[in-house]
Amino acid sequence: MDISAVNALSYEDFVNTFGNVVEKCPVITAAVWSRRPFVSLNALEAAISDFIDELPESGKEGILRCHPDLAGRDLQRGTLTRESRQEQAGAGMDALTSGEAERMARLNEEYKKRFGFPFVICARMNDKANILLQLSERCQNERAVERARGIEEVKKICRLRLQSLLLTDGANKL
Amino acid sequence: MDISAVNALSYEDFVNTFGNVVEKCPVITAAVWSRRPFVSLNALEAAISDFIDELPESGKEGILRCHPDLAGRDLQRGTLTRESRQEQAGAGMDALTSGEAERMARLNEEYKKRFGFPFVICARMNDKANILLQLSERCQNERAVERARGIEEVKKICRLRLQSLLLTDGANKL
Repeated sequence: MDISAVNALSYEDFVNTFGNVVEKCPVITAAVWSRRPFVSLNALEAAISDFIDELPESGKEGILRCHPDLAGRDLQRGTLTRESRQEQAGAGMDALTSGEAERMARLNEEYKKRFGFPFVICARMNDKANILLQLSERCQNERAVERARGIEEVKKICRLRLQSLLLTDGANKL
Repeated sequence: MDISAVNALSYEDFVNTFGNVVEKCPVITAAVWSRRPFVSLNALEAAISDFIDELPESGKEGILRCHPDLAGRDLQRGTLTRESRQEQAGAGMDALTSGEAERMARLNEEYKKRFGFPFVICARMNDKANILLQLSERCQNERAVERARGIEEVKKICRLRLQSLLLTDGANKL
């Protein structure tokens, strides 16, 4: 899909296509439709990023809280979104040893208890060992630092999801 | 559930319980968890209302765009959220005559084309005849007026959904 095709979409088709580029936050996609036309993929991504940046801190925390735990209950129950399932599987989250799974669960709980939102990391840019390392290290940060860091990761995830949707058949047009 | 029970919920349980009080916008519920403890149902409702009011106009339009058409494609396909299905059925949207259905579809399209977001009305506070009348009349409004009017309706829907969830077994405690 090239950017002119994106700009021609009704809000309904736009939200149906891009509604989960920020996990479980179709309202962000739906808001950004107001900013069309976009000159490029980068402009669409920037509009999403700007919208997120303009939210109050509680809104940013809200975005983080819409994300599932890595190797958590949603993965075990099969209730992840399609995008999250693929991303977590790609990073090996569905094939942890029992020791790794136990450590991940313990650290996820520690992180959530400390910060009031889940650990968010762009799984497609990290492998299993690195995710466990980062989770362990990031548990030690200050809350405001982690909120900002989590939002950075949300934006990386968003970028890769947008690219997957847009660049499959129209890379040279964007 | 009384308000002290609400205040004791983890963010995950809070979002699982109240995530759809604003249609398909769990991020709003998730954001408002940051404002707990709430002294009452009214305080929780006010926190949601304040969060919505502080969004940019594009964000308010985004909320409206997360709402399904009345008697629209989602109702026909069975893809409404549970709450919307009950509300639309209560207002008779699933039992329109073919003439009413045709008129509703035509006016919904006219409204969306004019404003770039769908007609939103609190179905539980209106019957079929009144919904068709309002839709017809509101098509004539200015865009900014309709955006504000739609958000008022979102808040009415939110209030009734909150009451349904909270007041079933704990009315006298709230």
